Amino acid sequence: MTTKITVEEVNRYLTDLFPLNRSITGPDNRRTLNILQNLAPLEIIEYPSGLSVYDWILPEEWEVHEAWIKDADGDVLVDFRWSNLHLVSYSEPIDKQLTFDELKPHLHQHENLSDAIPYRTSYYKRDWGFCVTQKQYQKIQKAKNPLQVVIDSKFDPNGSMVVGELLIPGESEEEILISTYFCHPSLANDNLTGTVMTAFLARELLNTSKRQRSYRIIWVPETIGAIAYCASNESAMKKIKSGLVVTSVGGPGKFGYKQSHNSDHSINAIIEETFSERKIDYISYPFDIHGSDERQYSSQGFRINMASITKDKYYEYPYYHSSLDNLDFVKPESIIESLSLHKDVLEKINTEVIYQTRHRECEVMLSKHDLYPKTGAAQIPTQNHLSDLDLTLWILWLCDGQLGLYGIAKKLGVPLERITKIIGTLESRQLIERIS
Amino acid sequence: MTTKITVEEVNRYLTDLFPLNRSITGPDNRRTLNILQNLAPLEIIEYPSGLSVYDWILPEEWEVHEAWIKDADGDVLVDFRWSNLHLVSYSEPIDKQLTFDELKPHLHQHENLSDAIPYRTSYYKRDWGFCVTQKQYQKIQKAKNPLQVVIDSKFDPNGSMVVGELLIPGESEEEILISTYFCHPSLANDNLTGTVMTAFLARELLNTSKRQRSYRIIWVPETIGAIAYCASNESAMKKIKSGLVVTSVGGPGKFGYKQSHNSDHSINAIIEETFSERKIDYISYPFDIHGSDERQYSSQGFRINMASITKDKYYEYPYYHSSLDNLDFVKPESIIESLSLHKDVLEKINTEVIYQTRHRECEVMLSKHDLYPKTGAAQIPTQNHLSDLDLTLWILWLCDGQLGLYGIAKKLGVPLERITKIIGTLESRQLIERIS
Amino acid sequence: MTTKITVEEVNRYLTDLFPLNRSITGPDNRRTLNILQNLAPLEIIEYPSGLSVYDWILPEEWEVHEAWIKDADGDVLVDFRWSNLHLVSYSEPIDKQLTFDELKPHLHQHENLSDAIPYRTSYYKRDWGFCVTQKQYQKIQKAKNPLQVVIDSKFDPNGSMVVGELLIPGESEEEILISTYFCHPSLANDNLTGTVMTAFLARELLNTSKRQRSYRIIWVPETIGAIAYCASNESAMKKIKSGLVVTSVGGPGKFGYKQSHNSDHSINAIIEETFSERKIDYISYPFDIHGSDERQYSSQGFRINMASITKDKYYEYPYYHSSLDNLDFVKPESIIESLSLHKDVLEKINTEVIYQTRHRECEVMLSKHDLYPKTGAAQIPTQNHLSDLDLTLWILWLCDGQLGLYGIAKKLGVPLERITKIIGTLESRQLIERIS
Repeated sequence: MTTKITVEEVNRYLTDLFPLNRSITGPDNRRTLNILQNLAPLEIIEYPSGLSVYDWILPEEWEVHEAWIKDADGDVLVDFRWSNLHLVSYSEPIDKQLTFDELKPHLHQHENLSDAIPYRTSYYKRDWGFCVTQKQYQKIQKAKNPLQVVIDSKFDPNGSMVVGELLIPGESEEEILISTYFCHPSLANDNLTGTVMTAFLARELLNTSKRQRSYRIIWVPETIGAIAYCASNESAMKKIKSGLVVTSVGGPGKFGYKQSHNSDHSINAIIEETFSERKIDYISYPFDIHGSDERQYSSQGFRINMASITKDKYYEYPYYHSSLDNLDFVKPESIIESLSLHKDVLEKINTEVIYQTRHRECEVMLSKHDLYPKTGAAQIPTQNHLSDLDLTLWILWLCDGQLGLYGIAKKLGVPLERITKIIGTLESRQLIERIS
Repeated sequence: MTTKITVEEVNRYLTDLFPLNRSITGPDNRRTLNILQNLAPLEIIEYPSGLSVYDWILPEEWEVHEAWIKDADGDVLVDFRWSNLHLVSYSEPIDKQLTFDELKPHLHQHENLSDAIPYRTSYYKRDWGFCVTQKQYQKIQKAKNPLQVVIDSKFDPNGSMVVGELLIPGESEEEILISTYFCHPSLANDNLTGTVMTAFLARELLNTSKRQRSYRIIWVPETIGAIAYCASNESAMKKIKSGLVVTSVGGPGKFGYKQSHNSDHSINAIIEETFSERKIDYISYPFDIHGSDERQYSSQGFRINMASITKDKYYEYPYYHSSLDNLDFVKPESIIESLSLHKDVLEKINTEVIYQTRHRECEVMLSKHDLYPKTGAAQIPTQNHLSDLDLTLWILWLCDGQLGLYGIAKKLGVPLERITKIIGTLESRQLIERIS
Repeated sequence: MTTKITVEEVNRYLTDLFPLNRSITGPDNRRTLNILQNLAPLEIIEYPSGLSVYDWILPEEWEVHEAWIKDADGDVLVDFRWSNLHLVSYSEPIDKQLTFDELKPHLHQHENLSDAIPYRTSYYKRDWGFCVTQKQYQKIQKAKNPLQVVIDSKFDPNGSMVVGELLIPGESEEEILISTYFCHPSLANDNLTGTVMTAFLARELLNTSKRQRSYRIIWVPETIGAIAYCASNESAMKKIKSGLVVTSVGGPGKFGYKQSHNSDHSINAIIEETFSERKIDYISYPFDIHGSDERQYSSQGFRINMASITKDKYYEYPYYHSSLDNLDFVKPESIIESLSLHKDVLEKINTEVIYQTRHRECEVMLSKHDLYPKTGAAQIPTQNHLSDLDLTLWILWLCDGQLGLYGIAKKLGVPLERITKIIGTLESRQLIERIS
């Protein structure tokens, strides 16, 4: 039984989670996962600061209490409380009086959007900075010096990085990976929408009565979180063949999907078919070395075919990585529609099966299995249409333990539902057996 | 020495065999094979009723003495003696007085041809029925009830199914399969023509002086006979790579051929080349899951590449499976022409060879083997024509134990005869050796 | 330090070597290699007459002292001293008085060029003959009989065939083969140019400071020399993957290259790229079974991908194999240009490398290796241009130990130099390692 998802419910999670100061570590990351636990029983895994994961070392945990710039008169020019984007993520502490010229290298404006605060980070190089709009920049420039600059942040070498994980078992141990990243502070489409949608998706997948394959769902800080997770779950991850990276699923623009690295992999055909079924016009983005955590999952050691279904894909909309990617930019309705698409696609991946005939030598006796017309010699195959009997014969001929159902449907040029129907009959008659 | 085949001789066999009441079992099947033994020394194999063959069980042997419908006055409305198509094959015995309404479900008319008796069977479901023309149907409909219906048939659980087999050894044990079906009663093109042509073909193949590969020629009841034969000769059949199903070879329409399941297999190229050599316009039918006994031979356990060369292919002509597919529809001359085509194709399959050079390192010394012009340095290769010397060099370079002669001919774009001539020379010089 | 090559120097070698009476054996072959030793320290290998090499036996060593035809009055009609092309190579000794009709079968004229002496040989069939211009032929025809014919040649069963060999070691033992043939007497483009250019090439390669792979450079009598060399160095030759046959590199016509047998092999892409870089218009000749010693090196036992870069390719120019292929036909400047092309191509072959990432699981931490911009989250990939960062990511993803650098450059559609630059950086950071 699926709990019905409502606009209000989605809105509540967006509103609660948007203001938190997420980063790759920190207390608001923990809070974010805690809130998502209301939707799905994800486990929170702590990876300690200093842990070596492949070529990387987990950074110290970062926490901010306050951060602001005041002019010589004590008037506040910019304050982290107004927007956590104002502070460069992972800024080191500072408490100094500076001239504007000394401050200048630490101020960041958006290149194109004058009203937007840009989003900047400095995870692996100790630095500090403030991100401001053009108007704020001008105001600071004109303010009375000395400027007082305070960042009350701290780095905890005994801290940790948190990751959310939910394993939903299916009939087979074969897993489908669903990965999303939650390291962005107040950015809505990229990727609060993905973070939240994945939790709703988890709730729905938990409630599906029948799962042929298992799901491995993870919420990770982008890059470093995915890498830490791969390193800590290497053998499990190396067995996975395909999955989805959930990101930017609630914008106002067009649907699209980024193909997995092997464009022939069935996951891409499944996504395209799902779009077609719903008559959704979409943009295809070829696999690219940039992107999100498919960069890790498709690396040589894993080569998992990861696709992403997006609504206003990251990189592509002007508000990307700015304060204008806010809750006004995204719609709960879009997230719900994306969720439905993801569910459909996952259902297809979950149920794509490979069968093998149990009678490799010669045809089976169709009439014995109640699959043949009563009177013989009366049938002439039609030219332009494959009847159920035709499909039955073809499927028995094609089910060789290698070709999956989407492959068979494509080869015969018929909708999958017709294949599935016949496969069901053949399996119930014990004429074919599922291999995978 | 080939015995010359004449129109009269073919006609005699067609005439003798047409009236017999063939089915998948029964005394007329035995009689048919006995008559064919006059043409070729085929062995008659008996498979006992009740034998399990893969997913099938051989049915009891069926025999008919008489079958008719009379009206209340004793006037005969339809009689099996008029045409053995009148009786549904494998009808169970009956001796009853019925009203027309009771009889009606057991009466079969042709859908499209008002003057034709359709051909119907009920091998695996105990049932009975009569097949009639539309005029006969109307007469029965108007006849005085009660109607007396008699079918004096019997099923023998201790009977058998007969199959004809002729193994014609060649120099190598590698076999080419030739299979035809003879289970149809009075139907001419499908497949009395194939049944008879195969016997003449067998006689001719026996008389060929040189066979590189062996032939396995079988006359089987369609489907069940092919399956029983596969089950009883599994290991031999699994070694076979290609062959022909002989069917519908004497109609008035166009020549055609149904491709084997792997359209790249050389058997298809060989058939196309044979048609081209004779400047015969033909129809190509792609492999289809329907058809004849290639359904069994191409199943996963065997995957033998079986093609069919047809003249008015089954399914395609309007008289198919009706009493109008009679001796007026077919011509001995067509059968003789088909036979000649089959012989050509088989000769090519039989002689296609794979060679390997005996000198893999560097070129051989052509002059030592009398393959080079006397004076050196005088030759410039011509641009648009491959000389015998060119072919010699290419063939030595290409004969790697993998590529057959038809492959080499296709690759070099020259007629096979030129390749064969050079191959012959190279083999006589012991520069290449036959691998297969 | 490369010794500068000058037109004068090339000219001196051409002039010194042109008049020698080279053949597949003989003292002038030794003299030719001795002269080349002034350019590069090639080793002279002697293969004894009578040695069996694969399908061949090395012929006796041939030497000529004089050869002429005089008329009955003692006037000289043709003399080997005028041109060593006048004598069919490997002519047996004769000292006889003959009528013109007796002499006629031993006279050879050029088919198309009336002023040219054709080039003819009779290595493996004992015979004798004279090659003459049409004017000389007419004069002999009209001369006073008996004609005195003298060939003072001898065959030494204890002689040998000489081959020049220079192994230039590189960092890896993997070898690139450079082979040229020097068995032609006074023929300039085919192949005195190749013989001489290869020696200059050897001198330059010896002087290159860094060689990743080794070079195996050989001067062989065409065919028999290549075969003897293969037989004597079989295991080394079987390890070689590609190389160049150097021939006809100094004519007045267009540049061209004959592809290796596998047209997808990188050697062909490298040659095409080299032509393109220099904006040289060139002719592509597909692999053909005719040609030079690639016939041996590409045989099944070796299958070395051998290409040839030519300027007026053998076979293609009218003066081919005639006395008009003389020093007036070729230009030292062309040889020097060809040499430069060969060096470029060899440099590319020598340096084409295959790398493998040292971090197969997930991405490396680029910032740690100083490969990432200081501030995070600010980058959006550009659409139509791959930045160095893009290439870095792609190369790390692609370096799988299989794909070479030319393959990567082609796949990413960027010039090799950009790939090489990034590869250099990645290697210095120990992020990838060279496999080959």
